[in-house]
Amino acid sequence: MEYRNISQLLEKVKKSGRRKRLAVAAAADAHVLEAACRAYEENIVQPYLIGDRPKMEALLEELGLSLPQEYLIHEPDVDRAARAAVALVREGQADYLMKGLLNTSNMLRAVLSRDGGLERTGTLSHMSINELPTYHKLLVVTDAGILIQPTLEEKAAIVRNAVGALRAMGYDCPKVAALAALEKVNPKMPETVDAAALKQMNQSGALEGCVVEGPISMDLVMDAEAAQIKGYQSPVVGNADILLVPNIACGNILNKSLRCLARSQQVGIVLGAQVPIVLTSRGATAQSKYLSIAVTAAMV
Amino acid sequence: MEYRNISQLLEKVKKSGRRKRLAVAAAADAHVLEAACRAYEENIVQPYLIGDRPKMEALLEELGLSLPQEYLIHEPDVDRAARAAVALVREGQADYLMKGLLNTSNMLRAVLSRDGGLERTGTLSHMSINELPTYHKLLVVTDAGILIQPTLEEKAAIVRNAVGALRAMGYDCPKVAALAALEKVNPKMPETVDAAALKQMNQSGALEGCVVEGPISMDLVMDAEAAQIKGYQSPVVGNADILLVPNIACGNILNKSLRCLARSQQVGIVLGAQVPIVLTSRGATAQSKYLSIAVTAAMV
Repeated sequence: MEYRNISQLLEKVKKSGRRKRLAVAAAADAHVLEAACRAYEENIVQPYLIGDRPKMEALLEELGLSLPQEYLIHEPDVDRAARAAVALVREGQADYLMKGLLNTSNMLRAVLSRDGGLERTGTLSHMSINELPTYHKLLVVTDAGILIQPTLEEKAAIVRNAVGALRAMGYDCPKVAALAALEKVNPKMPETVDAAALKQMNQSGALEGCVVEGPISMDLVMDAEAAQIKGYQSPVVGNADILLVPNIACGNILNKSLRCLARSQQVGIVLGAQVPIVLTSRGATAQSKYLSIAVTAAMV
Repeated sequence: MEYRNISQLLEKVKKSGRRKRLAVAAAADAHVLEAACRAYEENIVQPYLIGDRPKMEALLEELGLSLPQEYLIHEPDVDRAARAAVALVREGQADYLMKGLLNTSNMLRAVLSRDGGLERTGTLSHMSINELPTYHKLLVVTDAGILIQPTLEEKAAIVRNAVGALRAMGYDCPKVAALAALEKVNPKMPETVDAAALKQMNQSGALEGCVVEGPISMDLVMDAEAAQIKGYQSPVVGNADILLVPNIACGNILNKSLRCLARSQQVGIVLGAQVPIVLTSRGATAQSKYLSIAVTAAMV
């Protein structure tokens, strides 16, 4: 199973017939409410919206939207709202989380708190899911948001997080490209060394449920003809599901270039905690927030 | 002066009325010959094609093309061909160079040779010029090809090279974005530290003829609305000419993503030697090689 685009994934989510329980921290924002209401109307989620309740009610009225009263939970302080959302997951009342109008660092502080936070299944990492007019299926970029300069061990965790998320969505064996500037190991380029190590770990069974190729440059990942000219053979050529980037700067620049210059529809998620955390930028549109909610529902 | 696209730049080149003298090393390749002949027919260049002459003649015949005999120089050995091309520049008989069918490292060895090489004006660096359907003018990415992990001093040289090239093309004051994952200096992210230093060097006059902004993230460079939401003001917002990337891996991944996913028409040039060196990949099309020859002609 692979997904050509987000619509195909949403069809699956809608067909599942089970609403996923979403806890949104600091939800008093027009785009967040519009997105949550749409996902509710489409039977995708039960949204627990934690924030300033009178403000949420006023925004919903302005938008001409309504939700059952039990979904609006009053907590005007954003940090307490984040802790309350996390508590719903701990108590088994929510399947996943979403960051509303608060900083990512404050959201993650509530998630990672020793007292009242979530269990971590491993290293936290960020992944974006991209629907591109120029690629034949969904394309993940990771990690462009959490780890500044990941070690080999952390890169293995980043791959495991992304592979686990795609497998939860129905993928059998995601294809991972460990990106570098070229295909040969160069001791002066640590990302080539790590990429070769990750490939070996995959072959020896230490990284399971996926195929890892690397070091590999972006044109060989994208362009089967270019790979043929260079005599490079791999199931990942022309067909990658996941791009592992060397560090956060590279991932951030790539992600934003895909959005601004390659017209990507982009969804952002933090993985590695007990449940996925939907992470959209505060300026994101209601449509983008809706897609993020709906896509992440496919993982829980 | 700025250029909306490559066509606009080519108009200027064609109007200049002066053919630029181009020396091509290891030119016995169908795409190289086709590109050089087209630039010759359009009065852009006088192409000195150095390579296996009988092979070049056979290829030209196959392609139904012809060139004056004096432009075909017989030297079947690729390294000697590279040295011969460099010698034409040294002797004042060529204005710029192009790499044909040989490795970049062999080409650069001939350029940098103490005995018979070119004068260096500074640090060598690579820049790509991108024409994108999603951006309103040409966009340079540098350095995605020479320096693996440039120091601050080398980054300043990379900026000087690119700014000098654009000014030679007619730009008054190119706008440079020193890219990072965010806008604040973070001591754990060396690219943010270097970007702030480059901005200060620009303000204090150590980096002239341009406006440098940084650290700045790609979405603020591309999206004036996102910058407004974040309260970020700069003449570079929404209007950058040059993107300075943190290192070669990031630049390479960005460049190839622009080409493969954002439909960039891309030209590659090495700067910092006495003359620019046109550098296209061996698999590039004749059209792409032609554009690289013609665009670089605007710099000499």
